[in-house]
Amino acid sequence: MKTHTEKLTFDETIKLESGSTLSGFELMIETYGELNQNKDNAVLVCHAFSGNHHAAGTKTEGGKPGWWDQIIGDDKTIDTSKYFVVSVNNLGGCDGSSGPISISPETNQMYGASFPEVSVKDWVNAQKTLLEYLKIPAWEMVAGGSLGGMQALQWSISYPTLIKKAAIIAASSKISSQNIALNEVAREIIRKDENFAEGDYHLQNIKPKKGLKAARMLGHITYLSEANMRKRFGRKLQSPETKIDEEVSYEVENYLQYKGEQFAETFDANSYILMTKAMDSFDPAKDFEQDLVKCFKQIKAKLFIASFNSDWLFPKEYGKDIQLSAIKAGVRSSYVELEGDYGHDSFLFHSDEYASSLKNFLESDE
Amino acid sequence: MKTHTEKLTFDETIKLESGSTLSGFELMIETYGELNQNKDNAVLVCHAFSGNHHAAGTKTEGGKPGWWDQIIGDDKTIDTSKYFVVSVNNLGGCDGSSGPISISPETNQMYGASFPEVSVKDWVNAQKTLLEYLKIPAWEMVAGGSLGGMQALQWSISYPTLIKKAAIIAASSKISSQNIALNEVAREIIRKDENFAEGDYHLQNIKPKKGLKAARMLGHITYLSEANMRKRFGRKLQSPETKIDEEVSYEVENYLQYKGEQFAETFDANSYILMTKAMDSFDPAKDFEQDLVKCFKQIKAKLFIASFNSDWLFPKEYGKDIQLSAIKAGVRSSYVELEGDYGHDSFLFHSDEYASSLKNFLESDE
Repeated sequence: MKTHTEKLTFDETIKLESGSTLSGFELMIETYGELNQNKDNAVLVCHAFSGNHHAAGTKTEGGKPGWWDQIIGDDKTIDTSKYFVVSVNNLGGCDGSSGPISISPETNQMYGASFPEVSVKDWVNAQKTLLEYLKIPAWEMVAGGSLGGMQALQWSISYPTLIKKAAIIAASSKISSQNIALNEVAREIIRKDENFAEGDYHLQNIKPKKGLKAARMLGHITYLSEANMRKRFGRKLQSPETKIDEEVSYEVENYLQYKGEQFAETFDANSYILMTKAMDSFDPAKDFEQDLVKCFKQIKAKLFIASFNSDWLFPKEYGKDIQLSAIKAGVRSSYVELEGDYGHDSFLFHSDEYASSLKNFLESDE
Repeated sequence: MKTHTEKLTFDETIKLESGSTLSGFELMIETYGELNQNKDNAVLVCHAFSGNHHAAGTKTEGGKPGWWDQIIGDDKTIDTSKYFVVSVNNLGGCDGSSGPISISPETNQMYGASFPEVSVKDWVNAQKTLLEYLKIPAWEMVAGGSLGGMQALQWSISYPTLIKKAAIIAASSKISSQNIALNEVAREIIRKDENFAEGDYHLQNIKPKKGLKAARMLGHITYLSEANMRKRFGRKLQSPETKIDEEVSYEVENYLQYKGEQFAETFDANSYILMTKAMDSFDPAKDFEQDLVKCFKQIKAKLFIASFNSDWLFPKEYGKDIQLSAIKAGVRSSYVELEGDYGHDSFLFHSDEYASSLKNFLESDE
């Protein structure tokens, strides 16, 4: 699989949905496979809230595989011997694209808390700039899970002629009160970390790691299903020799402690807040008098909508809602309810049913 | 309704399940109604993890009604014109009974983090001391929701001849991996508050309020159902004039901020940790080779087991498991699945079906 990683710099000013502007921005991208002569084999994959541009393959010996490595690759579901796959770290992220930890061209200092609010629409607009830069006439497919699926949906609404297919997986046309509440608790935990310093921790060379860790621990619970946790951990006690923390009794606690700590080492707290706020505010129907059917009448792409039975964070009703509105709006769409052993995280993992339905969709006629 | 509040001091040493001892302890109790001549109308109600002895009525003009005020009172479900209701703040709590904020008779200082680990069994043992003190031959019923229901179940196992009926509501015979994980996140948030001081915050005259607040915000999400939050808050934006916190966008965020702050003012962080640990460790089958049926063979009381459809924290499968084991063990029991609009918190609120089934159970023959 031919892999290419690059940081692109765009000089044009981008106006964000919030009204703020970025005078110039950077996008960290990674591509897999090659663009064909007809330029009709390009697939954009959009990451979920804590993901980044590294979607497939392993960059270094023993390194971490990309977040969708089970799906993207030669002879895999999104077959990189046929398709040119583009993956981009979103604005506001912390892995190379313009975000809180990058340097503002205006002040020559790290943005920190001053990085403006971003939205799913803003990401799609930035990705459209990328499409033009790559001289691709249209995406054959835009795909993603969770917040990534929201971007795929937004693409089909914002740029109907620039996208042939949208794969909207484990996603929602707007998140629930409960989702917002869980995001707010995570933000509260981070904001109240003694090292948060109102978001300007970088100025003091400190990091709110404790807050990030606890927020991620909470996140992890919501990404997994109750059944999956029961199967993996049950009520098994952690052996004293392998305890991460003195206070831990059960294996499940130890696992969360470990995962949380790992995350806190690498992720940025301001990005966490920005990304979850973007998830909260996503609501494409708001531009169409809260009428999702009216909103969907913009769409020309074919839609693939998938939900997972074990997902309690974005339950299957969310997928069904999208499908019903698509039908009413006369959009070509298919909805599939998949098993999935991993709760909300199921979209990250291969299963035969999931792979074959997504592959058939991608390789179907337009 | 005749109401009596009293702090009782017991001089006897109590040995806790952990192996630690308390040389003397205090119990804060509240009673409603009067013990009859036959002493066969006494009902013990057990509080859930953040509750206390104040279960019914309103202590002061404009004060907060007790946590089960919709259920307990003259002519209510647990009718205080017929029954003598006893409510006790549990050991390890922070409302008058021996716990982290009370004074150790050994050191003459506040226990703080040194207060020993407590368990559901320990609470039941302390309540048994109370039963003897009150010179009541046996409880007509022990009842509670959530962690309170676990105490009712433990009573029927520990002291089969001292309890006629047990009402086990929105409870479980042991909690799941997911429940433990949620408790651990709450504890992690509290422990990592800059003011936690390894649990000895009282020595510095500070309180880990920020951690307690965020932990409670998380708790609130789990106590309510997704449907209830949707109905109450949906995605409504909070008006700027009534925002509690600058960072709040949605009503649901504001509500959680408010509830969390209120709680942090009154509850004790060490108690929070102790109470959730008691919930995690509850597993009566562990004394019977993990065989719940064998464990239930101790029981002589009649059981009333109720679960609520909207409860995702302690879902109805938990109630069914108790019922199935009761049937196999030959215990007289009835299981009811109730609607309940409030998720896990439904056990706190009156509904006709809930009230009539619990009342019928209480007033049935032994």
